[in-house]
Amino acid sequence: MNNMNQDTTSAVDDYMITVGQRARAASRIVGRAETRVKDAALLAIAGALEASEGRLLAENRRDLEAGRASGLEPALLDRLEITPKSVKAIAGGLREIAAQTDPVGEITGLKYRPSGIQVGQMRVPLGVIGIIYESRPNVTADAAALCLKAGNAAILRGGSEALHSNRAIAACIQQGLAVANLPADTVQVIDTVDRAAVGALIRMAEYVDVIVPRGGKSLIERISREARVPVIKHLDGNCHVYIDDHADLEKAVAVAYNAKTQRYGTCNTLETLLVAEGIADQVLPRLGQMYQEAGVELRGCPRTRELLLDIKVAAEDDWYEEYLAPILAIRVIKDMDEAIEHITRYGSAHTDAIVTENYSRARRFLREVDSSSVIVNASTRFADGGEYGLGAEIGISTNKLHARGPVGTEGLTTQKFVVLGDGHIRR
Amino acid sequence: MNNMNQDTTSAVDDYMITVGQRARAASRIVGRAETRVKDAALLAIAGALEASEGRLLAENRRDLEAGRASGLEPALLDRLEITPKSVKAIAGGLREIAAQTDPVGEITGLKYRPSGIQVGQMRVPLGVIGIIYESRPNVTADAAALCLKAGNAAILRGGSEALHSNRAIAACIQQGLAVANLPADTVQVIDTVDRAAVGALIRMAEYVDVIVPRGGKSLIERISREARVPVIKHLDGNCHVYIDDHADLEKAVAVAYNAKTQRYGTCNTLETLLVAEGIADQVLPRLGQMYQEAGVELRGCPRTRELLLDIKVAAEDDWYEEYLAPILAIRVIKDMDEAIEHITRYGSAHTDAIVTENYSRARRFLREVDSSSVIVNASTRFADGGEYGLGAEIGISTNKLHARGPVGTEGLTTQKFVVLGDGHIRR
Repeated sequence: MNNMNQDTTSAVDDYMITVGQRARAASRIVGRAETRVKDAALLAIAGALEASEGRLLAENRRDLEAGRASGLEPALLDRLEITPKSVKAIAGGLREIAAQTDPVGEITGLKYRPSGIQVGQMRVPLGVIGIIYESRPNVTADAAALCLKAGNAAILRGGSEALHSNRAIAACIQQGLAVANLPADTVQVIDTVDRAAVGALIRMAEYVDVIVPRGGKSLIERISREARVPVIKHLDGNCHVYIDDHADLEKAVAVAYNAKTQRYGTCNTLETLLVAEGIADQVLPRLGQMYQEAGVELRGCPRTRELLLDIKVAAEDDWYEEYLAPILAIRVIKDMDEAIEHITRYGSAHTDAIVTENYSRARRFLREVDSSSVIVNASTRFADGGEYGLGAEIGISTNKLHARGPVGTEGLTTQKFVVLGDGHIRR
Repeated sequence: MNNMNQDTTSAVDDYMITVGQRARAASRIVGRAETRVKDAALLAIAGALEASEGRLLAENRRDLEAGRASGLEPALLDRLEITPKSVKAIAGGLREIAAQTDPVGEITGLKYRPSGIQVGQMRVPLGVIGIIYESRPNVTADAAALCLKAGNAAILRGGSEALHSNRAIAACIQQGLAVANLPADTVQVIDTVDRAAVGALIRMAEYVDVIVPRGGKSLIERISREARVPVIKHLDGNCHVYIDDHADLEKAVAVAYNAKTQRYGTCNTLETLLVAEGIADQVLPRLGQMYQEAGVELRGCPRTRELLLDIKVAAEDDWYEEYLAPILAIRVIKDMDEAIEHITRYGSAHTDAIVTENYSRARRFLREVDSSSVIVNASTRFADGGEYGLGAEIGISTNKLHARGPVGTEGLTTQKFVVLGDGHIRR
């Protein structure tokens, strides 16, 4: 809220407080809404999006033109664009969320206690969720749908570059909510480009229960630093594959190649390959050639560079790097203990895999590597809500508390204790 | 860190960073320690405490004398005191924690996915837990034991008034850790009365994963406000019992009386009694007499005061109040909807109960009241880790994220995803 005069700040703060109060009130209604009502809203939003395709593309064109005029980077323009295909994809995603099991209300572990009471836990909505994101307008629909399915009210703050697109999507969401008789305030899209709105949103803990920022690392770091509301966040994804000397060679090559090359820009992409020295001369020449044919730049430790000639040196900094690009650091190490040590020291506790046929090492790796996903004999690329069966995901959390790893609708809920008695008193 | 000159601040910060680094290193070892090793340490600490009873009482006497000399309130002196009975109770508590199931390593929900991988979640320690507490020296042993059982390293910062007591307990903890061959840094007791130590502890997110403050509301609010590390906290316990007009009269009287009078100073004690108007004239005269015979001061709404003559008026502020004393606010309302409205508006989302024989109302109350414990036909006093079967508790969380309600060892852990494959790659 720097560089703002007092009056403007107050006006934005007042606006955001109203938004927060409305969200809180709506959260009470959507929180107790029946599953079929929430699903009806989701299906109606999907229908409204498809029916409004022309309008969505036209509004999106305004954003794209403004973006081009203001010199927005091509990558950002690309993320900003809505196509007939992406409208279908968004609507399809909403229908999938509607088809998922409702996480709300599930009671688990209900047991009789010696006192005679029954105690269990009921899954309940978090309440109000604030989503702060950058250019992709599809997030407006996806995030709203995930929050709604989990019984929460959502406050969405997209990037100013997507303002018209987001408004058009918001209109479809409103149509869908109205069809299902849910309050309009269940999903509110912040309609000001004033950045003070974000500052207010992340500080009003009385109206907002959790913030989910989606975007670049600097956005997420700034929000985490300034927030007074808990943040479910994704920071780095510096992922490792460790090829053990007891690895099956074919599996090792397949997993390490897939983990790096299936997609370069995702957070669960392999960034540093660790290879046990006992197997390095069997696996590295073959893998090195495959990577190079795929156009991956390799950076190696001294031993790697003896096996793969003419590749660059991996400096200390490379071990920390999340390239998000066709670049791979490779290190030959002694054994699994050194691999765990390397992962603990340089990794980001996101997703790390071992390839081994050795039972005891697999068991130890699973227990001792402290990452949100720990994998044996499979690609790091599987670390994903869809692949894990969570349905659509709001993101992959690198937090330790609450939700860790891919976060679906369940991560947007919490549990309360329920107690059933028959006039029981404590003695 | 106000009122400190730069040199002192830096010295304390440096000290705390060292403490944090040591805790992080120890957390890696205790996090993978086998159950029997952790339990052996707990039993050895219990034994050491009993064997050191004389020493503990002598050191405690030093704190008590200093406290009396500095004019510490009688209630605080009371909490500070260690007796032969309390030493036995602490040691017994540690043995109970040793006897509990180890939460660490449990794998749940391991299922095959269509891709062929198996995905589940493994329960793992949080890492490093900082506990900040006031006078009760028993917390030093209890909190250390809960953290240790859950595989965490602990940094404990007790009140300066209990310094000698805490040091003596810390010595016993060190003996127990040594017996089990666990690192001494698994439990570190901050040995400076400098308040800047707390400021450093709650900000060093790279070394501390969660802060658990235990003490008065002002301490907890200050820590929550200033912390950069997530805080598992307990704020208010403004608990309600709603007596529905379909209540069984005997159960209603028993539950409402027990919830208020079984103990006055606990967070799960009844503070406002809500009574449906249809049953008020049957239940209030009888309950009113019982409360008054027990010495409870009653404050009522106008209708209550027609039924219970000569009681005080309940003002608007009373509905918000957590008395923690023999005082009770009573309000006659129309029906369950008004009860839920009252609880939502004035309550603290801690523990709320309904007394009713009506199935549909019980079902709705359970779903719609958004509190950490929601109870049907039983006393609010049951909201407790021991009563819920969680074993000893580190506290009752009023957070929505992560742990909500009584927090035992499981609340001091988190879950990571584990993936088992056989060379699977993502397509």
